Amino acid sequence: MSQTIIPTRLVGPLKIVFAKKIFEINVPLATYETPLWRSVGRVARLSCLLDGIQTTVLRDVMTRSILLEADSAQTLFDILKDLQRKSENLKELVEKSSKFAKFHSYHAEVIGNLLYLRLAITTGDAAGHNMVTKAAEQVLDWLLKEYPQLKYVSLSGNYCVDKKVSAVNGILGRGKSVVAELTITEELCIKHLRVSPKDIYNLHIKKNLLGSILAGSLRSANAHFANMLLAFYLATGQDAANIVEGSQGITHVELRGNDLYFSVSLPNIIVGTVGNGKDLPFVQENLKTLGCLEKRPIGENSKRLAAIAAATVLCGELSLLAAFCNRGELMRSHEVLERK
Amino acid sequence: MSQTIIPTRLVGPLKIVFAKKIFEINVPLATYETPLWRSVGRVARLSCLLDGIQTTVLRDVMTRSILLEADSAQTLFDILKDLQRKSENLKELVEKSSKFAKFHSYHAEVIGNLLYLRLAITTGDAAGHNMVTKAAEQVLDWLLKEYPQLKYVSLSGNYCVDKKVSAVNGILGRGKSVVAELTITEELCIKHLRVSPKDIYNLHIKKNLLGSILAGSLRSANAHFANMLLAFYLATGQDAANIVEGSQGITHVELRGNDLYFSVSLPNIIVGTVGNGKDLPFVQENLKTLGCLEKRPIGENSKRLAAIAAATVLCGELSLLAAFCNRGELMRSHEVLERK
Amino acid sequence: MSQTIIPTRLVGPLKIVFAKKIFEINVPLATYETPLWRSVGRVARLSCLLDGIQTTVLRDVMTRSILLEADSAQTLFDILKDLQRKSENLKELVEKSSKFAKFHSYHAEVIGNLLYLRLAITTGDAAGHNMVTKAAEQVLDWLLKEYPQLKYVSLSGNYCVDKKVSAVNGILGRGKSVVAELTITEELCIKHLRVSPKDIYNLHIKKNLLGSILAGSLRSANAHFANMLLAFYLATGQDAANIVEGSQGITHVELRGNDLYFSVSLPNIIVGTVGNGKDLPFVQENLKTLGCLEKRPIGENSKRLAAIAAATVLCGELSLLAAFCNRGELMRSHEVLERK
Amino acid sequence: MSQTIIPTRLVGPLKIVFAKKIFEINVPLATYETPLWRSVGRVARLSCLLDGIQTTVLRDVMTRSILLEADSAQTLFDILKDLQRKSENLKELVEKSSKFAKFHSYHAEVIGNLLYLRLAITTGDAAGHNMVTKAAEQVLDWLLKEYPQLKYVSLSGNYCVDKKVSAVNGILGRGKSVVAELTITEELCIKHLRVSPKDIYNLHIKKNLLGSILAGSLRSANAHFANMLLAFYLATGQDAANIVEGSQGITHVELRGNDLYFSVSLPNIIVGTVGNGKDLPFVQENLKTLGCLEKRPIGENSKRLAAIAAATVLCGELSLLAAFCNRGELMRSHEVLERK
Repeated sequence: MSQTIIPTRLVGPLKIVFAKKIFEINVPLATYETPLWRSVGRVARLSCLLDGIQTTVLRDVMTRSILLEADSAQTLFDILKDLQRKSENLKELVEKSSKFAKFHSYHAEVIGNLLYLRLAITTGDAAGHNMVTKAAEQVLDWLLKEYPQLKYVSLSGNYCVDKKVSAVNGILGRGKSVVAELTITEELCIKHLRVSPKDIYNLHIKKNLLGSILAGSLRSANAHFANMLLAFYLATGQDAANIVEGSQGITHVELRGNDLYFSVSLPNIIVGTVGNGKDLPFVQENLKTLGCLEKRPIGENSKRLAAIAAATVLCGELSLLAAFCNRGELMRSHEVLERK
Repeated sequence: MSQTIIPTRLVGPLKIVFAKKIFEINVPLATYETPLWRSVGRVARLSCLLDGIQTTVLRDVMTRSILLEADSAQTLFDILKDLQRKSENLKELVEKSSKFAKFHSYHAEVIGNLLYLRLAITTGDAAGHNMVTKAAEQVLDWLLKEYPQLKYVSLSGNYCVDKKVSAVNGILGRGKSVVAELTITEELCIKHLRVSPKDIYNLHIKKNLLGSILAGSLRSANAHFANMLLAFYLATGQDAANIVEGSQGITHVELRGNDLYFSVSLPNIIVGTVGNGKDLPFVQENLKTLGCLEKRPIGENSKRLAAIAAATVLCGELSLLAAFCNRGELMRSHEVLERK
Repeated sequence: MSQTIIPTRLVGPLKIVFAKKIFEINVPLATYETPLWRSVGRVARLSCLLDGIQTTVLRDVMTRSILLEADSAQTLFDILKDLQRKSENLKELVEKSSKFAKFHSYHAEVIGNLLYLRLAITTGDAAGHNMVTKAAEQVLDWLLKEYPQLKYVSLSGNYCVDKKVSAVNGILGRGKSVVAELTITEELCIKHLRVSPKDIYNLHIKKNLLGSILAGSLRSANAHFANMLLAFYLATGQDAANIVEGSQGITHVELRGNDLYFSVSLPNIIVGTVGNGKDLPFVQENLKTLGCLEKRPIGENSKRLAAIAAATVLCGELSLLAAFCNRGELMRSHEVLERK
Repeated sequence: MSQTIIPTRLVGPLKIVFAKKIFEINVPLATYETPLWRSVGRVARLSCLLDGIQTTVLRDVMTRSILLEADSAQTLFDILKDLQRKSENLKELVEKSSKFAKFHSYHAEVIGNLLYLRLAITTGDAAGHNMVTKAAEQVLDWLLKEYPQLKYVSLSGNYCVDKKVSAVNGILGRGKSVVAELTITEELCIKHLRVSPKDIYNLHIKKNLLGSILAGSLRSANAHFANMLLAFYLATGQDAANIVEGSQGITHVELRGNDLYFSVSLPNIIVGTVGNGKDLPFVQENLKTLGCLEKRPIGENSKRLAAIAAATVLCGELSLLAAFCNRGELMRSHEVLERK
């Protein structure tokens, strides 16, 4: 057993509004791409001169889709009608499977004689991959007994969707859906980022929106969410393969008078403060620094973690767009910093 | 400065055919999700009992798309017609920008009065992010001088596409496009994976193909390429945010008589054996273990690295599909291994 | 005012199972691509020798998404929480707006400070475009009064989604979601289509599934649903631009022993038996031929029409796949028929 | 044999710049949705008060993808390398297959042991569906003889892509890629459309760009291209199922000082002035009205037709966006007009 050691630095401070409280924190980022620290840091520090980055957690569920088959769509339709009257059973099965699992909802898709049943479950402060798998096992067992017309195909039908690009995760939810917003006065924008709000806005439209559409992107319009998410996930002991779905998010910018309204919406942030990977000493330390190991109602620590992740993404996103407005800045900063 | 330390293990041996040579190697995988080691390992060892995993590198380019604008599409059309006669200039500019950069091609897209020009460049043994950025800078400068009707918008127009889901990367290429293939006799399949080739095949169709289509995936049909790529990229000092595009790949399975033909096609593996992150001691050691620091023609070490990455992905992919065929196996293995 | 006259022919008979009744009908298809008639017809007639094409209508809603904005995501989140308690108001508003409108559900998406509210409504036997627009108007008026923090952006926010490619329509529904299924014995398959079930199956996997994935398709895997839908929509007075979403459907094939199970799933068939375009004499005649102008509970005539549309799609889809299995057949049939 | 008769009206006049010539024409539109005439007509007439709608045809090819298989990716790679040296053979085969076919290029994709070979051909004034199929037949025959390691799978591999949503058609081209642009002074915009350029611009960003991204659209960002394309295709004898790919286009809007720059980019307009469906008397009349049956170099009549199609799309697109800016206008216009 060897070790992979990734350079990590506390970046910030960053001023955040979460759950109607305001606070400043430093954020640990683990990355081989060290210019990222400076990039996130400059907007983080700018946020401290302003009202802070407001975060809103819109949704919180983890999902698993089981896959079954019958002889025909008609059989599945009849079963689904019957199942509607039995959602209490599903709730019971899910909540018996684990102390922290709370049943949220299910969504069914039928293709020919195949049934994809996507379970959405709230998983407390855990990211919840294993918790939903356990719950899915229980539901599967019960379905196969309750409806002998059904046959097992798979515990996961790729409609969950775990670590793969999809449209369903953004629409129906997987992980925490978070919006982070920052309003910047024209003066501070020009002073700290060396660009006007208008330049940021125009670049955003042509690069993030039109460029992404042209590239054949899917429910995703941003410059580089993946970079910040990766560094944040690694430093906080998350399963970083979740950046695949996590990075499918949308930057939205507006001019408000002369000021800049800058927002990032990430419908699929998958993080936990407990569970696999979280008991490593440096992870514990980083979660503590972020104030995410405190006594709080179940689920609140991981929501706070997701909110900080989104705020960090906002910093890096705005910083890169500003750099692209200034021809040559980007290249120089990379060259200078990587040579150090 | 602190450190993020990720558990890493050599998995294997794995039998690979690359560049018409056959060899066995152990592959370092860094992950918080430790059951992955066992999962990849069992198919790796199975490959040693067979003819090995055949790898084919179909394509190798790195890309950057610059973004410019004019007054109208007609102006852009006239410029593009003129540019066709001047591709030699582009070649010269690119190849002057860096010792290892070789011009490959360019692709232009026009939306209204906007021009997205995507440069494809071969970057030797480096992943090439910085090399293409430098080359793009040179091309940009020249274009703005050559065609005063053009105005700068961005050094990157999100049509590159770096670390974001897209269709263009798979179609036109970014990174190394690799296919890995393994044929398994029915006997060994049943003995080692406890499933028949037919069961694997049927699950693949319903989960990887239909499930992904249903989920609204995009040029992607696999169970979990992202997991293996992440662990491989981290252990070999790669920029792991590239798993976003890297994981958009396709598993293709066939029954050949009673045997199983199992393949993974990854059009966007982005790896290097030199450059940023590669001089860390453990990275050097891991690259050496993989035989990717040897004296070879330029580009061959990184192609070998990409081929091994694809072969590793194949092992993990087949292993998970086999586990899903056996109800309950997946859950048990996670529970047992994570408790250790 | 001139006229566009499209050649139209009754094709069939076709044997259908709908709402647990079995019947045979001829289907009018309007097309400039006249080989389509023969193509659909041969499988239609084959269905009469078998148990018929079983159809299942899984879902039936029409949608419209209104677009509003506030100062921040937090404001929208608070409004959405309040709105959850007031879904009765939405129901009332919708059902007052039109005699046939029944409120089904709503779905909200927040991006930054923007709110996309997608209303799903059952619209009786009308396709329902205008009915949902009227209902959306009422809801919009009420929301703007109830929540003065909201500002109008658009009566439609492109999240409906009307006549445009999308993922949301398939996942959440728009129009009627129909599955049509036919099981064909090996003998009749070979006799009538000159191919074996196995050949159809293999071609389907490589062309419809893998080919579509490769092409960067989206929630769509079929050979040519659009052709049959267009001809059917035109002949029955539908707004044929709805083939854009209608053709995003999935063919699913299985081998059952030696027999062929062939199915098409179309989540977005948008048809009506009343409303705009339906009072033209030839449309009335065609709807009557299809048995879709009879006295039935509200909505049943249009569901029957959708079921027949799906069955017609199945015929054309299977016929083309069979033709592709026979090299050269396709080309010859086009040449011969178009010269007539 | 019966007839489907679609109400058709000449709308306009419309002022167009095509091939550096400027002219005014009336455009026939066939539709059951009769408010479309007024909607297109008001912007058409506005164009006559301005410099006209400038059109640019960027690209013109028709495509067909054949599908073959071998034992392995390595075999396919070797064949593709060999084929690069033989593109002259492909050219010869294609050009022998039909008087008007000109070889343009080919694009290959490999998935496992499958080869999708996409041929791009210029087809004169025909839409070219049959012409590329004939050419593909010839190429297929030759490939199977030249490379006995290859086996036939299908004459079309769904990578063409005919009448199906895709990313590849926009990126590599299918049909004519046309941009249409119109610049409108603030004064005329307010006078004729009752909205300011700024209102149009803001609505476009939030509805066409963000709304489409959110809906999980693919390389498509417009309000209703499909409506205009359908009416235009039907009236001019085109295969209207091609609106599926045709409607995947992008509206791009800018504010130029106080004026409005409005553009539509349609990469996949598939139209012909000769071939199937074009000899119907009303089609001949409509093509003549559009000036598309004149003696011109091969291909110029169909390019002109595509340019007019794009200009018509622009009119309808701008008109609808303006209507959405004025709350209630849309609903009223539908109600009033449909009752007539």
